[in-house]
Amino acid sequence: MSKLCLALVPLALVVGLRPAHADEGMWTFNSFPTARVATKYKFTPDARWLDHVRLSSARIAGGCSASFVSGQGLVLTNHHCAHECIEQVSSAQKDYVKNGFYARTPADELKCPAIELNQLVEISDVTARISKATKGLADKKYNDALKAEMTRIEKECQTSARFRCDVVTLYHGGAYNLYKYRRFQDVRLVFAPEFAIAFFGGDPDNFMFPRYDLDMSFLRVYEDGKPAATPEHFAWSPAGAKDGELTFVTGHPGGTSRHITIAELEYQRDHALPDRLFRIAEWRGILTEFQRRGPEQMRVSNELLFSLENGFKALKGRLDALQDKPFFASKVAEEQAVRAAIAKDPAKQKAYGGAFDAIAKAQARLKEIRIPYRQIEIGQAFASTYFDFARTLVRGAEERAKPNEKRLREYRESALPAVQQQLMSAAPIHDDLEIVNLSFSLSKMRELLGADHPFVRKVLGKQSPEELAARLVKGTKLRDLAVRKQLWDGGKAAVAASQDPFIQLVRVVDPDARALRKTVEDQIDPVFKKNHELLAKARLEIEGMGNYPDATFTLRLSYGQVKGYKSNGRFTKPFTDLAGAFARDTGRAPFALPP
Amino acid sequence: MSKLCLALVPLALVVGLRPAHADEGMWTFNSFPTARVATKYKFTPDARWLDHVRLSSARIAGGCSASFVSGQGLVLTNHHCAHECIEQVSSAQKDYVKNGFYARTPADELKCPAIELNQLVEISDVTARISKATKGLADKKYNDALKAEMTRIEKECQTSARFRCDVVTLYHGGAYNLYKYRRFQDVRLVFAPEFAIAFFGGDPDNFMFPRYDLDMSFLRVYEDGKPAATPEHFAWSPAGAKDGELTFVTGHPGGTSRHITIAELEYQRDHALPDRLFRIAEWRGILTEFQRRGPEQMRVSNELLFSLENGFKALKGRLDALQDKPFFASKVAEEQAVRAAIAKDPAKQKAYGGAFDAIAKAQARLKEIRIPYRQIEIGQAFASTYFDFARTLVRGAEERAKPNEKRLREYRESALPAVQQQLMSAAPIHDDLEIVNLSFSLSKMRELLGADHPFVRKVLGKQSPEELAARLVKGTKLRDLAVRKQLWDGGKAAVAASQDPFIQLVRVVDPDARALRKTVEDQIDPVFKKNHELLAKARLEIEGMGNYPDATFTLRLSYGQVKGYKSNGRFTKPFTDLAGAFARDTGRAPFALPP
Repeated sequence: MSKLCLALVPLALVVGLRPAHADEGMWTFNSFPTARVATKYKFTPDARWLDHVRLSSARIAGGCSASFVSGQGLVLTNHHCAHECIEQVSSAQKDYVKNGFYARTPADELKCPAIELNQLVEISDVTARISKATKGLADKKYNDALKAEMTRIEKECQTSARFRCDVVTLYHGGAYNLYKYRRFQDVRLVFAPEFAIAFFGGDPDNFMFPRYDLDMSFLRVYEDGKPAATPEHFAWSPAGAKDGELTFVTGHPGGTSRHITIAELEYQRDHALPDRLFRIAEWRGILTEFQRRGPEQMRVSNELLFSLENGFKALKGRLDALQDKPFFASKVAEEQAVRAAIAKDPAKQKAYGGAFDAIAKAQARLKEIRIPYRQIEIGQAFASTYFDFARTLVRGAEERAKPNEKRLREYRESALPAVQQQLMSAAPIHDDLEIVNLSFSLSKMRELLGADHPFVRKVLGKQSPEELAARLVKGTKLRDLAVRKQLWDGGKAAVAASQDPFIQLVRVVDPDARALRKTVEDQIDPVFKKNHELLAKARLEIEGMGNYPDATFTLRLSYGQVKGYKSNGRFTKPFTDLAGAFARDTGRAPFALPP
Repeated sequence: MSKLCLALVPLALVVGLRPAHADEGMWTFNSFPTARVATKYKFTPDARWLDHVRLSSARIAGGCSASFVSGQGLVLTNHHCAHECIEQVSSAQKDYVKNGFYARTPADELKCPAIELNQLVEISDVTARISKATKGLADKKYNDALKAEMTRIEKECQTSARFRCDVVTLYHGGAYNLYKYRRFQDVRLVFAPEFAIAFFGGDPDNFMFPRYDLDMSFLRVYEDGKPAATPEHFAWSPAGAKDGELTFVTGHPGGTSRHITIAELEYQRDHALPDRLFRIAEWRGILTEFQRRGPEQMRVSNELLFSLENGFKALKGRLDALQDKPFFASKVAEEQAVRAAIAKDPAKQKAYGGAFDAIAKAQARLKEIRIPYRQIEIGQAFASTYFDFARTLVRGAEERAKPNEKRLREYRESALPAVQQQLMSAAPIHDDLEIVNLSFSLSKMRELLGADHPFVRKVLGKQSPEELAARLVKGTKLRDLAVRKQLWDGGKAAVAASQDPFIQLVRVVDPDARALRKTVEDQIDPVFKKNHELLAKARLEIEGMGNYPDATFTLRLSYGQVKGYKSNGRFTKPFTDLAGAFARDTGRAPFALPP
C-alpha cells in the first residue's frame, strides 16, 4: 500500500509527557557541539557518553524513532510507530488496537510481520571516495557514477544480513557518510495501551500541546529466536525531568529542507503541497465514510486513516508556513545573501554562480512532468498492497538479474533484506479496503491525466475504476504468501509465466513508469544533486561547518532546557499530568478514556 | 443545505452542442456596444432586437441561465440546472434522474418544488439616488445608508409578488441599476433526458471540449395554473449555426472579479481558494463512498456530489490561474498602472490614493476572522437542510418584526417570496444524507476552530459530531411542511416556544453568528464597498466606460464568431456530433450511453 511516511516529526526518547524546548539544532553524532553544550550547561557530552546515547537509540526502518530500555532488547517507541504491527497481529476476534496488548511472559510476545529495527553501530566519512568517483562528471554520467560508488561502498560494508549499510548524503552532497546499522528483523510486540488512551484527543489534538495521550508501546528485538542482548540502553528515571533541567532528545527526523532554493520552495508552496493535500483530503473523506460500514471496516482502516489525517495536518502546517509572507520573505533574503556572497567573489562565481538557475530549470522541468511521474512511477494511480507486491516481483526479477551497481537503488543487495521482509510479510490484507483505495486512486489517475490520456486508456480500457479495482483484487493470488515466495524465488521466468492480474497490470504499466523514472534520474535528479552539492560547498565556504546538516532520517541529537512557553499572552507549563486527561474526557471518541 | 452555486459558468442559449469563441466582453443590455458589432459584423443589434433577446432570456433564481423557446412558457435550460428539481420529483420507485422524464400532455408536467424563474422586464439607473443617500458617509453609517436606500428602491418597485426587484451593484459601485424581473414560482418539469447522456463524460469531461453530452432539459412556467404566455422567445433553428457565423450568447454569469486588487487576489490564492478546495475534496470523498451504500443513497446524493465535483474543478481552475506566474504578474502590472495614474494626478491622489491600502487592511482583517466567520455565520459548520430551515425560521421571525430597511438583506420584503418558497419546498429530505453531511461539517468545525474553542464546546458539549448530528436529525419535526408553516406564520412567539432540536441549536448559535456578521458588515464590507467604488470611479476616469462591468449574476450578452481553435498544436473543430458520443461510449459510467 502506498502510505504516507509517519516520521514527519522527530520522535524519540519521549519517556514522559513533556516537551523539550530545544536549542536550535539536530546534530549528527560525529559533529556534535560538545564544547558549546559544556560552556552553556556545565555538562560535557564526551565521546563515551555520545556512544552510549547513540547505541541506546534505535530506528524503525519504515520510518520511526525508538530507544532501547533494557539489557534484553526491550524497545520503547510511540504507539503510532507500532500501530501497524498491532493492527496486523489483531483480528476481528482479538482487537489489540482497541483493547491494548500485554505479554505476561516472553512466550506471549507477538511477532511483528513488517518491522525492521536498526541500531547505528558505526559512522564513517566517505566523502573523498565519492568525490573521486564523480569528479568532472555531469548529468546521467554523474548520477550513474554516484549511484555505483554508493552501492560499492555499501556492498563492501555489508558483510551479512545482520548489518545494514547506507551511504547517506549530508549537507545536500557537501558530505557523504557511511552509516552501518545492526539490523533486527525479528521484532515482537510486548505492550500497547488501548488506542483510546494511546491516541487520546485524536486528530484534533494531534501536533498540539498541552496534550494528554499515552502515545507509547514496548517492542523487543530478538536474535536467533532469543531476546537480543542490548547492554547499551537508556535507564528509566523514576524522578522524571525537572523544570529548567538540561535535556537531550535523540531521534530520526524524516527530512528537513532548510537550504532548498526559493524556486523549490515556490514549487512546494504552489504545486506539490496543494496537490498532495487535495489528494489526502479526498482519500480521508472516503475512509471516514468507509469506516461507517461497520466495526470491522473501522478496525482495518484506522491505521491508514490516521496516517492520512496526520499527513494532512503536517503538510497543511508546512503550506501555512510557506504562505506566511514575512517567513517567506526571510527565506528569500537568506538566499539573496548567499547569491550576493557568491557574486562578489570571482572564484566562487565561477564555481557556484550557475547553481541557482540550474536548479530552477530542473524544478520547472519536474513541474511539467510531475503529474504523470507521481501517478505512474511513484504509483499514486495504484494505491494497493497487491500492486506494490506485483511491482516488487516484476522489478525485483528484472533488477536482480543485473549487476548490483546497475540496479534501481531500491533493489541493490544491501536493500534486499528489507524488500523481502515487506514482500513476505504475513500481515493480513483486507480486500474491501484494497478495492476502495484502488478505485479511488484509479479515478484520480483518470481525473489528473485526463480520460483521453493513452496511459489511462491502456490501464482502464472500457472498465470503470471501480470495476477494474474489483476485478484485480478478486482475481489476484498474491494474497497467498507462498505464491509471492514462489514468484520471487522463481525470478524472471516465474514472473513472466504468471497470469496474475496484478502482475499483468504491472507488465502493462512498467514501460511507461520506467521511462518517466529514467527522465527524472537522468535529466532532473542529477541537476538537483550536483547543484545542491555546489551550493552546499558554497555555503560551507561562506558560513563554515558550524551548522548542522538537513535531516535525512539519520540519527540526530538535540539539546535544551525543559521550559514552558508563552503564546497569545498565555503561559503553558512544560508538563501535563494524568488528571488533565480525565478533565478532557467526554466519554466520546477521540476524547473517551478507556475503562 | 449549504450548497455550491452551480452558476460558475455562463450557460444559456446553448441550443446545439457547439462552443462560441466570444469577442471579449459580457455586456449589460443597457450598454451593449451595438456600433462596434455593426462595424465588425455588418449586423446591427438595435434596441428592438436587444429587447427581444432580453425578454427571451431567463434566469433560475437559485443560480442558472435559461431561455424561453415557445409562446406558451416553454423554457430550455441545462440538465444540471433542472437536476435538483428532477431529483426532488423522483422517488425510489420513479427515478427520473436515471431514466429521464417526458410529459406527454401539459397535465403530466410535474411541479418543481424549489425553482423560481425570472424574466428581466426593466432596467433603470439608480446611481444618483444611491450616491445622494450615502454622500459623505463611511463605515457602518455608509453601509446602513446604502442598504436602506437599496431596500427602499426595491420596495417601491415591487408592486406585487409577481415581480422581483433587485438593486444591483455594477462596476463595484461605479453604478447602481434597478433590475425588475417578472417572477415565476410555478415552474414545471416537461422533459429531461437520462442522466447518463445528460452528463455523459461526467466529471472527467466537465468543463472540457470537445464534449458529447446532452446537457439540456425543458421546463414550463405557469401563471394562475395555466402555461404563461411568453410572446417573446427564441425560435428553434433547424439549420443550426455555421462555421464563421456571428453568434450571440445570453446568460447570467455568476461572478467575475477582474478588478479586485492584488491584496484580494493573494488572499484568494493563498487562503480562500485552498481552504474551500480542501473542504470540497474531503466532502467529495465522503459522498463518493456514501454512494456505495446502495442505489438509493446514490440517487439522493448525486446532485450534491455533482455540485461538489463541479465546484472543485472550477475553483481548482481559478487557483491554477492565480498560481500561473506570468498571469499573476500581468495583474500586478495592471494594478501598478492604475496606482501610477492615480499618483501622478494630485486630484485623483487625494480622492482615490488611499483606496488600495484601505482594501488591503480590510482584507487582512477578514483573513483573521475568516475561519469563525465562515464556520459560524456562513454556516459551514452546519451542512444541513434542517439547520437552514431552522435559521430561516429563527431569523425570519426576528427580522420581520423590524422595519424593512433595518433587516438583514435576505429578509427584506422583496426577498421574502423566494425565502418562503425555499422554506415551504415540498422537496424530500434524506435523513441519512443529512446525518452524513452534518457529521462532516461538525467535525470540520471542531478541526478548524479547535476542540477547546468555546463555540465548539457550546455546540458539541460532550457529544461527538456523529452523535449530535444523528440526535438532531432524528429529533427534528422540521421535515413536516405544516410544522415549518406554523412556525413561520406564528412568528417570534411560535419560534420561541419551539422545542425542536434544530431551532434550539440555532438559538444557541445565533448570537455568535450575528456578532461575526456585525463585525463584517460594520467594519469590513463597507471598507471594501466604499473603496472599490472609489477605485471604480478612478478607473472610469482613467479608462472611460468602454469596458463592461464584472459579472454579478445579472443578464449579459456576448458575441463572436463560431470558430475552432488550436491548442498544443492540434486543431479542434467548433462542432461535435452524436457519432462522437458513440465513439466515446465504454458502456461504463460516466461514459455509458443509455439504451
